[in-house]
Amino acid sequence: MQVTILGNNSALPAFGRHPTAQAVSVGGETILLDCGEGTQIQMERYGIRWRKISHIFISHLHGDHYFGLPGLINSMSLLGRTIPLNLYAPAAIMDILNPILQVADTRLSYEFQFHPIEENAEAILVDTPTYQVKAFPVEHRIACHGFVITEKNNARKLLPDKCREYEVPTYFFERIKAGEDYERKDGLLVKSEWVTAAGIPPRRYAYCADTLCTDSFLHHIRSVDLLYHESTYLHEDVAKATMRYHTTARQAAELAARAEVGHLLLGHYSSKYKDTAAFQQEAAAYFSPVTASLEGTIYEV
Amino acid sequence: MQVTILGNNSALPAFGRHPTAQAVSVGGETILLDCGEGTQIQMERYGIRWRKISHIFISHLHGDHYFGLPGLINSMSLLGRTIPLNLYAPAAIMDILNPILQVADTRLSYEFQFHPIEENAEAILVDTPTYQVKAFPVEHRIACHGFVITEKNNARKLLPDKCREYEVPTYFFERIKAGEDYERKDGLLVKSEWVTAAGIPPRRYAYCADTLCTDSFLHHIRSVDLLYHESTYLHEDVAKATMRYHTTARQAAELAARAEVGHLLLGHYSSKYKDTAAFQQEAAAYFSPVTASLEGTIYEV
Repeated sequence: MQVTILGNNSALPAFGRHPTAQAVSVGGETILLDCGEGTQIQMERYGIRWRKISHIFISHLHGDHYFGLPGLINSMSLLGRTIPLNLYAPAAIMDILNPILQVADTRLSYEFQFHPIEENAEAILVDTPTYQVKAFPVEHRIACHGFVITEKNNARKLLPDKCREYEVPTYFFERIKAGEDYERKDGLLVKSEWVTAAGIPPRRYAYCADTLCTDSFLHHIRSVDLLYHESTYLHEDVAKATMRYHTTARQAAELAARAEVGHLLLGHYSSKYKDTAAFQQEAAAYFSPVTASLEGTIYEV
Repeated sequence: MQVTILGNNSALPAFGRHPTAQAVSVGGETILLDCGEGTQIQMERYGIRWRKISHIFISHLHGDHYFGLPGLINSMSLLGRTIPLNLYAPAAIMDILNPILQVADTRLSYEFQFHPIEENAEAILVDTPTYQVKAFPVEHRIACHGFVITEKNNARKLLPDKCREYEVPTYFFERIKAGEDYERKDGLLVKSEWVTAAGIPPRRYAYCADTLCTDSFLHHIRSVDLLYHESTYLHEDVAKATMRYHTTARQAAELAARAEVGHLLLGHYSSKYKDTAAFQQEAAAYFSPVTASLEGTIYEV
């Protein structure tokens, strides 16, 4: 699983940084988390094949998290897309998208499937054989959700020596990795666990923006491999952060420590900060490893 | 009067080109013509002081001409703007902007004044002592207007020798240039026209996007100093252009010739063209001078 940061600034674009959007490669697909203004242009810039994206998740309806969506929806249609597009967002987004489509007399070339995210509720939004996306409420000025993305990896690891010993043919390798047993011509049933070992445990990525720093959703992000948590301010502005339902770099690090995550990724920087290295420095005193996200950079989960 | 091209591509962003937006410096102000996605970021990039823009004009409600507006409106408020913002656009835009502001519980820091542009009608939208903006209908798939911007320059030109001869004092120069007569202490009334010559004739800029190539608005753009006319396609695609209510480079040039404009500026290129030099080449056979607009470039009117 990989996360490409397309925008990591807060509401006001500044210093070449863009509003929030992330592309997550998971289970052979790419999904989009939030879609700030200019996302389609950022995706083009960083080589994200957005024409194939089928699932978009919007955390909340502050403009810096969704103003790029109407353009992306339109562009996909102009390109003659035929596969359905699934949008997961607060229900009120359709009060905005419907008149946009109506006033331009737009007929989308593809099926647009909207799935409202229920306010203040947790929900499994997508569950495929290769990944799962779960929404959970965070605490912001308006209804807002975080997401946990789990890459399922049920495939077991092949033990070549054992396969030779039990004479499992190559064509059966994928099936025996998936847990199926193999019946030899002499009648012996070769059990999957004889010739394979347990696979890689599932990887988990948690995305938390925008939110007050709170333990209310800690159980959702506990032990994830990578936690992206907003850090709009440095801790000298903790009062402002709290008042505006945002988090400081130090608070995000302290939360990451309590949640025992594998790695912390910071972002959603206020436009008052030109340099983002200070976020990493501040957080590193409270949690490690931590990275202040950079746009266009790919982070492994 | 100067025009800065912030976006010159048609609906689909491509090859680093952005959707339509232009900043026009006129009469000591900067106004915005259309506001495609990413306009606020483009303005930052090209040094347009968008915080001070008081008048925005939207030609029509296809997304590539206004999807940058919600972000710009929000950003101005986040920056604590206090001067009013005037938006001129088709009435239906408020069916989109109102829910956007409502769902985020936005309270703008400034007065937002909306002025609907009446469909299929011409109208003087702004008329100040230094410039005028007039809207006129063009022919597109949905209701769409072009704009003519006139920089008023009523000031006459001072004739220094004559001023000395008639003993006009320096402090009165601005007033006598504005047409006022000066009464000397000896009672002689020095007429403005005795000591000044006619000033520079007003400069005019016409903006036509998006539209079918048509003479129906030719009287509005006749003899303008600079005409920006969309040229979505090259003439080999004239059938497609006509079907989609767009214009080819050749057609734009032929129209410029019929309208006897001073200079033709092309733009709104289809994303199928990587190189825009072909637009200039094609048009140059039918009208000169012609320029294929480049983003970030400033064109003098």
